[in-house]
Amino acid sequence: MIDTLFNHRSIRKFKTCEIENTKLDTLLEAATRASNTGNMQAYSIVVTRDAAIRKQLWEAHFKQDMVLSAPVHLTFCSDFNRFSQWCTQRNADPGYDNYLSFLTGATDALLAAQNAVIAAESLGLGACYLGTVTWMADHFIRILELPKLVVPVAAIVMGYPDETPALTDRLPVEGVVHYEKYQKYSPSAIDSIHAEKEALESTLELIKINGKETLAQIFTDNRYTRADNRSFSRTFLKTLAQQDFMSNED
Amino acid sequence: MIDTLFNHRSIRKFKTCEIENTKLDTLLEAATRASNTGNMQAYSIVVTRDAAIRKQLWEAHFKQDMVLSAPVHLTFCSDFNRFSQWCTQRNADPGYDNYLSFLTGATDALLAAQNAVIAAESLGLGACYLGTVTWMADHFIRILELPKLVVPVAAIVMGYPDETPALTDRLPVEGVVHYEKYQKYSPSAIDSIHAEKEALESTLELIKINGKETLAQIFTDNRYTRADNRSFSRTFLKTLAQQDFMSNED
Repeated sequence: MIDTLFNHRSIRKFKTCEIENTKLDTLLEAATRASNTGNMQAYSIVVTRDAAIRKQLWEAHFKQDMVLSAPVHLTFCSDFNRFSQWCTQRNADPGYDNYLSFLTGATDALLAAQNAVIAAESLGLGACYLGTVTWMADHFIRILELPKLVVPVAAIVMGYPDETPALTDRLPVEGVVHYEKYQKYSPSAIDSIHAEKEALESTLELIKINGKETLAQIFTDNRYTRADNRSFSRTFLKTLAQQDFMSNED
Repeated sequence: MIDTLFNHRSIRKFKTCEIENTKLDTLLEAATRASNTGNMQAYSIVVTRDAAIRKQLWEAHFKQDMVLSAPVHLTFCSDFNRFSQWCTQRNADPGYDNYLSFLTGATDALLAAQNAVIAAESLGLGACYLGTVTWMADHFIRILELPKLVVPVAAIVMGYPDETPALTDRLPVEGVVHYEKYQKYSPSAIDSIHAEKEALESTLELIKINGKETLAQIFTDNRYTRADNRSFSRTFLKTLAQQDFMSNED
């Protein structure tokens, strides 16, 4: 089991064959076995296989190839719509139109998503998360017709792998783990935990191609810029309000 | 592997023995193998074993017994502090003091947390998530001395199980899965997906003990009330601002 975790690779190229329904059912059921808050299961999973809808999703994902090539697209959503509807039908007054409830549902959805990915990998499938789902949440809401109190937090493409990528580098474990309390990083600790990553041949090549001085500049100037981050922040918070998750005042 | 997912139980009673360092190291490394955004690994994990600090954490968790009885407390945090410090040291200008970056780090942290739990369970350990970590985030920040751009999103207690609880009920998979697009729930669909849960002996007993008409009322009136949810929403959003995650305007 634990080998599955250590062998994880994000897969971005897929064979044309479909995922069998039995496998899909198994990994979706595995998703529902994840821990969740108060057993409310405040999430929903949208399974999209239709080519026309996947084309729309592909556009919302900045036209990343893998969305077209993967036979299945999964969208994990924070969902207090279903739970609230149940409350109303049971003579109970639901109070889940607020930020905490969004965060609760997002947590439930993400733990379920990771279970789905691990189950998929243990069944011989490959998967990749797409961060564009939060950047473009309003588009996914429109395409997938998500009602109030439903907001997407994870998108995963899945299928049979048509590539065998190398294991991705990670910071040394001691670079992300703190004992007892958070220990502030000294400048030399920052240097040392990034040394291996910065010395990789692929890193040096990337810096050269991008005409930058450092790997960090590729992140701040090209990949995850302040302007983009702030723009996506405003859009996402506006989307939360539009989906009725921001009634926080008494 | 997949059996580990299907056999998941939250464990709330622990033996007094410690977790061996080798096991702890293995599950922490497994956590770092989870997918993350752009390989920034925008999270940190705080491992707390010290009894005096765990007592403070126990108080912040509304004095839930399991926090005292578990030998290890793990706090998974959205963390753009380390990444930003690296950027600054590399002549790059970090723009991660915004909501989108918090959400990115929270996603990374939660996927890593679920890997840690699955790895722990596959090693014979037991674990339980505590939702109180978001309700009382400001307390955890104080106790664990989390700096700016670090906010806790998951807390897990872990140790060797001293109980063997039954598998918890879940909604039928079709109750949380939608095909192609989101399909609105009809009133009768809501009834049918909750029928099994509502017919459980334990549910009927719970309703009786609480003097309520329905299970839903226990959630809305006692466990997750509107007033609490709104109050925790305001506190959490204020905490995000205090930790420098809310500079969203250009």
